[in-house]
Amino acid sequence: MFENNTRTELSQMGEFGLIKHLTKTIKLQHSNSIKGVGDDAAVIEPGGQHILLSTDMLIEGVHFDLTYVPLKHLGYKAVAVNVSDICAMNGVPKQITLSLAASNRFSVEALEELYSGVLAACKKYKVDLVGGDTTSSLSGLCISISIIGEAEKNEIVYRNGAQEKDLLVVTGDLGGSYMGLQILEREKAVFKENPNIQPDLEGNDYILERQLKPEARTDIRPILKELDIKPTSMIDISDGLASEILHLCDQSSVGCTLYEEKIPLDSMTVSRAQDFNIDPTLCALSGGEDYELLFTINQKDFEKIKNHPDFTIIGHITDKAAGAQLVTRSGSSIPLTAQGWDAFLKK
Amino acid sequence: MFENNTRTELSQMGEFGLIKHLTKTIKLQHSNSIKGVGDDAAVIEPGGQHILLSTDMLIEGVHFDLTYVPLKHLGYKAVAVNVSDICAMNGVPKQITLSLAASNRFSVEALEELYSGVLAACKKYKVDLVGGDTTSSLSGLCISISIIGEAEKNEIVYRNGAQEKDLLVVTGDLGGSYMGLQILEREKAVFKENPNIQPDLEGNDYILERQLKPEARTDIRPILKELDIKPTSMIDISDGLASEILHLCDQSSVGCTLYEEKIPLDSMTVSRAQDFNIDPTLCALSGGEDYELLFTINQKDFEKIKNHPDFTIIGHITDKAAGAQLVTRSGSSIPLTAQGWDAFLKK
Repeated sequence: MFENNTRTELSQMGEFGLIKHLTKTIKLQHSNSIKGVGDDAAVIEPGGQHILLSTDMLIEGVHFDLTYVPLKHLGYKAVAVNVSDICAMNGVPKQITLSLAASNRFSVEALEELYSGVLAACKKYKVDLVGGDTTSSLSGLCISISIIGEAEKNEIVYRNGAQEKDLLVVTGDLGGSYMGLQILEREKAVFKENPNIQPDLEGNDYILERQLKPEARTDIRPILKELDIKPTSMIDISDGLASEILHLCDQSSVGCTLYEEKIPLDSMTVSRAQDFNIDPTLCALSGGEDYELLFTINQKDFEKIKNHPDFTIIGHITDKAAGAQLVTRSGSSIPLTAQGWDAFLKK
Repeated sequence: MFENNTRTELSQMGEFGLIKHLTKTIKLQHSNSIKGVGDDAAVIEPGGQHILLSTDMLIEGVHFDLTYVPLKHLGYKAVAVNVSDICAMNGVPKQITLSLAASNRFSVEALEELYSGVLAACKKYKVDLVGGDTTSSLSGLCISISIIGEAEKNEIVYRNGAQEKDLLVVTGDLGGSYMGLQILEREKAVFKENPNIQPDLEGNDYILERQLKPEARTDIRPILKELDIKPTSMIDISDGLASEILHLCDQSSVGCTLYEEKIPLDSMTVSRAQDFNIDPTLCALSGGEDYELLFTINQKDFEKIKNHPDFTIIGHITDKAAGAQLVTRSGSSIPLTAQGWDAFLKK
C-alpha cells in the first residue's frame, strides 16, 4: 500500500508528536476559521448564518474492513459521510474535527495514509480540519468526525416538513454501494481460501467507487437554488432508501407511495445484483451507503425538476393513515419496511 | 450497579430504537439550540459571538477502566473534560454531541446509566445535548464528545499569548486525581487476588472524586471577569502541570520559572502520595486529569489576584532562551520535562 516499507511505531512519536506530524500540512481555506488545530478549542467566526452540527463515528469491523478498504479511501469516506449530513440540511459544510483511536497495529505511515484521504476530502469539499483528538486503542481503529456547516435560517430543510401530495425525489442512483460491497466481500472470501488468487475487481469500477469513495452531494444545493426549489423535507441515504423514507414519513407525520419501477438503478448495479441473485430493488431499499439525497417538493415545482438528469421522482406523499406503501412492478401495493443496515444487528 | 437486574440487549432495540430511547428525556436549555437530536444535523442560532469547537475521545482500557469506574461517573466525566476545554479558551460551553460505540457486552440499561451521567453534567454545566451517533463496536466502549462554546472575540484566551514577566497562575490543587487513580488501582489489584475482600476506599473521598467525577472550572471565567483580569494565555490541566506549562511556553515562544514549593497540593494528596512512596510534586507535574486551569497574567494584575483562594501564583514567564525551569524546594533549578500521561505510551 505504501511506496516504501518504512514502519514508524506510534509510540516512537508520542501523542503530541504524532498530532504535530499529522496536522502540519493542514491549510485552512476559510477566513472564518480563526484558529485551527493546536489550542484547547478551534475558534470560528460566525457569519450571521445558522450553524449546523453533526457527527459520525466509524468503527473497524463494524463500518469498514481494512482487508479491502485502503486507509486513504477510508479517510476520504469518513469526511464525505459527514459532509453528506450537512447537505441533507441544505447547508454548506465548513469545518470538521477528527478524532482517531488506533492500536499499535497501526504505524505512523498508516495514519499518514488515513490523513491524506481526510485532507483530500477537505480540499474537495472545501472544509477546514480545525481540531481533533488522537489516542490509542486496545484494538482496532475508531474514527469520529464532527462537522460544522452554515445555512441561512430560511434555507434549512428539516426531515419533518413533508406535506400530503408533495413529490418524493431522489438524486443519482441507488444500490450501487451495496453491490460494490458484495464484490469486495466475495473477493475477500476467495482470498481467504487461496491467498495466491488475485482479487477480480475488473469491470466493477463504478460500484466499487460508490462503496469505497462515495461523494457527498454538495452539488445539489446550488442546483436547487438555481431551479428556485426549496425542498419541504430532506434526508441523506445512508441506511437504505426504505429506512430513510420511513424517517421522513415518521417525522413529518405523513404516509407515502413509492413506485418500485421509478427507483433509479445504474445498469452495473442491476447486472451485478442479477449475478449474485439479489433483487436490485432490494439493494436500493435496504443496501445503504449511497449518500444520495432524498427529498420532497411541492407539486408546483414539478415542471422545474421533471427532466433534470440529477433527479428522479419516485413517488408522492400521502395521508399518515395510508402509511408508507411500495407499489411493485406488478402493480400490487405492499407496506414499506426498513430492513436497512442496522449497526446493532449487523454483527 | 443497577436497582434491578433487568438486562435488555442492544440488538432488541436496534440503532434507531436505542437512540430514541436514550434521548427521550433530553431537555434543551438554550433558546439558540434550534434543533437537537433527530435530524441530519443539529441547528444552532449564533448570537454574534465567536464559536469555540473542541472534541475528546475516551477509549475503554486506555482512558477508563470499568472495573472501578461507574458508567454514570464516566458519562459525567466525558462531558466535564470537554467543558474544561471551552473553559480553557475563556468561553461559555453551549452544546455537545455524543457518539457512542458499545459492544454487545453492554446492555440498554448500562447505556442508560452512562446517559444519566451525561445528562447530569449537561444540567450542571448548562449545555445542550443536540446530536450524536450510536453504534456497535467489536470490543469495548468508545465515547466521543464534541462541544461548541461561545465567547466574545476579545475575550478568547489562546495558548500563545504569554509574555516575559507574566505571572504563572493555577486554579485549585493538583495531583489529587492521580492519587485517586492509585487508590483505585490498588484496590483492583487486591480484589483480583481475593474477590471476597471489599475495596477499602474509606478516607479518600476527595481524591477519588477528583479522579471519578472531576469538575470543569466554569466558575473561573466569571471570577476573572469580576476581578477585571484577562489572562494572556490559558490551558486546562489534563496531562499534568509540566506538560501543560511546556505547551504554553512552546506556543508562546517563552521560557518560565516554576517554583516547586508554590505548587498547590491538597493535604490528602500529600498524605496518600507518602503512603505510596510517591513524590507529591510528581503527582502534580505528571499525574494529569486535574482539569484545573493554568494561565498567565500581566504583573499589573498581581494585586487583584494575590490573596484569592481559587488561585495560586506558581511562577513567572521568562525569556525563551532560559527554557522552562523548575526551582526545587532545595533551591536548585532543573529543566522542566514532561513525563505526563501519554496515550501511546500508557499501554
